[in-house]
Amino acid sequence: MDSGAWLLFLVVVAVSTSGHIHSEAILRLPSESEEISRDYCDSWMLAVETNNAGTWNRVPASCVDFVAEYITGDRYRRDCDVIRNLSAAFAKSVGLAGDGRDAWVFDVDETLLSNVPYYQGVGFGSEIFNETSFDNWVDLAAAPALPAILSLYNELKELGFKIFFLTGRSEFQRNATETNLLLSGYRDWERLILRGSSDQGKPATTYKSEKRAELENEGYRIHGNSGDQWSDLWGYAVSARSFKLPNPMYYIP
Amino acid sequence: MDSGAWLLFLVVVAVSTSGHIHSEAILRLPSESEEISRDYCDSWMLAVETNNAGTWNRVPASCVDFVAEYITGDRYRRDCDVIRNLSAAFAKSVGLAGDGRDAWVFDVDETLLSNVPYYQGVGFGSEIFNETSFDNWVDLAAAPALPAILSLYNELKELGFKIFFLTGRSEFQRNATETNLLLSGYRDWERLILRGSSDQGKPATTYKSEKRAELENEGYRIHGNSGDQWSDLWGYAVSARSFKLPNPMYYIP
Repeated sequence: MDSGAWLLFLVVVAVSTSGHIHSEAILRLPSESEEISRDYCDSWMLAVETNNAGTWNRVPASCVDFVAEYITGDRYRRDCDVIRNLSAAFAKSVGLAGDGRDAWVFDVDETLLSNVPYYQGVGFGSEIFNETSFDNWVDLAAAPALPAILSLYNELKELGFKIFFLTGRSEFQRNATETNLLLSGYRDWERLILRGSSDQGKPATTYKSEKRAELENEGYRIHGNSGDQWSDLWGYAVSARSFKLPNPMYYIP
Repeated sequence: MDSGAWLLFLVVVAVSTSGHIHSEAILRLPSESEEISRDYCDSWMLAVETNNAGTWNRVPASCVDFVAEYITGDRYRRDCDVIRNLSAAFAKSVGLAGDGRDAWVFDVDETLLSNVPYYQGVGFGSEIFNETSFDNWVDLAAAPALPAILSLYNELKELGFKIFFLTGRSEFQRNATETNLLLSGYRDWERLILRGSSDQGKPATTYKSEKRAELENEGYRIHGNSGDQWSDLWGYAVSARSFKLPNPMYYIP
């Protein structure tokens, strides 16, 4: 049978225990090439999440539909919920000293805030990053919270953690970023740390390690760190436990 | 409709461009609870692969079927193939000095060799690790190679890399391990490093970092490192690029 000349349809038939038959729906099944592509993209995304792919600068053309479906769908939400629950379980296991020095660090983009509404307009990571258009989006202060992370944030606050936001965004974006965080539901964080003039051009791992080391020098114990990039989590002055959120749209070295 | 009182069937209907209809097969669709469980286990496995789950000592009961299906199925093979190709692409980009000091490090279990035949007999990681029964399995020298890694190994040899095997297995297992590696197709590795008496009880990250540092002190440049555990790859004297193979069956801190 030449698969190119056939269309496959899915017919869902429900048979009740009393023998009645009810036909539920008719859907087109994915073609063989669509299945091969989805399977490949599933493996590609695992390679990205485990950093096996190393540095990459755009989503492969064959995986744009996969990334769009993932990042706007239930699976991303479920993946974030599982990470949220693992993070909260760890946080509850920490014996807080009660001296106000037990800390948790969050990245901002694709961690506290979701830029999916922006990336929907620029091909879900299939185009090379355009700083000007992204900065215009940041100025709108319109990014929604990741629901799982807003929920985790509130739980950590209740447990007594001091919470630091550490972002690759620059100082000139402080107002827009604070406005966006407030509009999306975040309240009463300890400090928002952005790149100052002396931080420009540093790799994210270096900049973020330096800032975490400064927190440690102030006496903070960084128990947890949540980010969507390994460069949020690796380097030095690392947290006791790190939580890597999924992001198949872009990579920051 | 009470889902408990209904069975769902999948009917695949193929319609040719000439209008002929051909009914292909009838399969039972997974139940709602099976779908919820599989979705959860998919997110759990991503959390394991990115180390978000931290230390864990057995596969959750609800995910044993998922792990069994994954590790014996096409998806594991595809995930390993993608990692193999990313590893080979990186290896080809390395400018080898030609002084015989360009090195690559491989872990043994679930990297060079697959212990799936053993884990099939003990619940695919749902039982607590039993050292005695695993050691008996090692003595059989019957583990097959991971096809993707044997292929990568041979390509790296051709490119001129010196290849080191660095395993948590102990010196008393040297003969069985060498026999198994030869029987499964590996030839002409540079050195097999096992835990000696002074290495017993060390965390894997410490032991493996120490051994990599010894290689660096001998003048080797470790370009790549392949392992199924983060403890194979993290610590110090880390390679330029690390490649994390999937393993949802067990965790070594």
